[in-house]
Amino acid sequence: MPREILVVGSTALDSIETAHGAVSDVLGGSAFYFAAAAARYAPVLVVGVVGEDFPMPRLEPLRRLGVSLEGLEVVPGGRTFRWGGRYHADLIGRDTLFTELGVFQGFRPRIPPAARRRPLLFLANIQPRLQLEVLEQMAAPALVVTDTMNLWIDTAREELERVITRSHILIVNDEEARQLTGERALAAAARSLAARGPRTVVVKKGEHGALMLSGESLFALPALPLERVVDPTGAGDTFAGGFVGSLAAEAKLDDAALRRAVVRGSALASFSVEAFSLDRLLAVTPDELDARLARFTALTRFDLG
Amino acid sequence: MPREILVVGSTALDSIETAHGAVSDVLGGSAFYFAAAAARYAPVLVVGVVGEDFPMPRLEPLRRLGVSLEGLEVVPGGRTFRWGGRYHADLIGRDTLFTELGVFQGFRPRIPPAARRRPLLFLANIQPRLQLEVLEQMAAPALVVTDTMNLWIDTAREELERVITRSHILIVNDEEARQLTGERALAAAARSLAARGPRTVVVKKGEHGALMLSGESLFALPALPLERVVDPTGAGDTFAGGFVGSLAAEAKLDDAALRRAVVRGSALASFSVEAFSLDRLLAVTPDELDARLARFTALTRFDLG
Repeated sequence: MPREILVVGSTALDSIETAHGAVSDVLGGSAFYFAAAAARYAPVLVVGVVGEDFPMPRLEPLRRLGVSLEGLEVVPGGRTFRWGGRYHADLIGRDTLFTELGVFQGFRPRIPPAARRRPLLFLANIQPRLQLEVLEQMAAPALVVTDTMNLWIDTAREELERVITRSHILIVNDEEARQLTGERALAAAARSLAARGPRTVVVKKGEHGALMLSGESLFALPALPLERVVDPTGAGDTFAGGFVGSLAAEAKLDDAALRRAVVRGSALASFSVEAFSLDRLLAVTPDELDARLARFTALTRFDLG
Repeated sequence: MPREILVVGSTALDSIETAHGAVSDVLGGSAFYFAAAAARYAPVLVVGVVGEDFPMPRLEPLRRLGVSLEGLEVVPGGRTFRWGGRYHADLIGRDTLFTELGVFQGFRPRIPPAARRRPLLFLANIQPRLQLEVLEQMAAPALVVTDTMNLWIDTAREELERVITRSHILIVNDEEARQLTGERALAAAARSLAARGPRTVVVKKGEHGALMLSGESLFALPALPLERVVDPTGAGDTFAGGFVGSLAAEAKLDDAALRRAVVRGSALASFSVEAFSLDRLLAVTPDELDARLARFTALTRFDLG
């Protein structure tokens, strides 16, 4: 019986341009990407905020996957957080075209009383001050998994460090790991971050895969070589969703379970980038997911004989 | 009984500066790095050229590993090829401080008659015209493995393409793969290169490991996360040496053998960078090598349950 997950993060409408086309006002935000991936493995409740303009029927596919939206606040007369971005030809670099915070500006996460005892909490990359407010409302979750972004490393370092100290698992990308620690070597950066509290540190390396330090155990997983990336938006949140979802379904959170979680997170992220918004992620069938997981095995297996 | 390897490449004296110190006129060149690694698994004969100034006693450790130097031409009165470089703080970027070609300028590889039937040939990254001359002298080796560099892609493209067409295995780094094919995605670049002739293409990604395409099989191996890199010079040639040496010791060159070869090449390369020149590589004990190989297994294994 998988444990229940609570995610607090952004819930947005994105406008995105890549070499493969452009879309506007599509479903976006860290909490939705996370939930779409995590719900493959465990029940997820989303805490976030949208404006009255938000097209609620668009969330039906998430509901059908088992995502609870009872923590999604709708601000009367408010306008939903909108982000616009244009990706460079390499589909890695990107320029932000606009950020309209709308109701996200005054967001104060309120955890529904029934959700305060959820055992798994994912703090997506919102303001560290808000991440701390969420932690205050929760009844000692068994597992706190935290994401962040370079903006908060620059502007809210002290609060961020407090969040990291109170997290069991920290998920960052390679540049954030270096920025937080001053270490160029990612294994050294992960060790430095683990020394601040988290027992497990996952460093996402985009097209180069992921590195996880858990206790003394180092795990490296290459990314699936993708020949067609349509929209990289949300890949990191999707990874986190598959990772936390997988852990929620494990009887025991040992090293083997953590490694499986990295593979499942990577597999779901590899789907996410194949189309704009959550389109591909929401359409993945169980058979497709199994086949994708098998590709990771085929990609990485060797036998020293 | 491992098959015999012939390597044709540069044999040089290097002067290197990194964040960890500086050395001058130390053993260097692609053929020596390659041979030191390959000799762990199979007999290797080096074809190259040095000047009369070359300190021959420095090659004793290579001889002791079983490297034959009967193809090493010594030019009377000639001066050995010297290269000087300074690595950036990230130990990836580097500036060439000087290149004194010396006897390497007029190098025309002469394969000793007894070596023309060697079944495994490694063409290190010398002028493609010279690589073709070597191929002309050989009696249809069972396996031709080729390396190259960006300089030849820019200046000798046509000859290089002819060498690639005649190679069974091509080893390039990520930037070379992109430059040769115009494909940014490395799997797509590998497919494009394989379409030109080689049945196997290995793309080295430095700190991100390696990707191999062999027929329809894709294999990705992360690099070992190293916390201390002293001198990256020769890491690619060391990888190639471990790779070809491992293949020379296999009864059957199937996908499993190729994957093992990538792991062994990576393990030897991970030693090579721990000290200047060939110092660490030549000192590796069999037990150390086994332990390093086991670290690759520990780093990459997962079980989807």
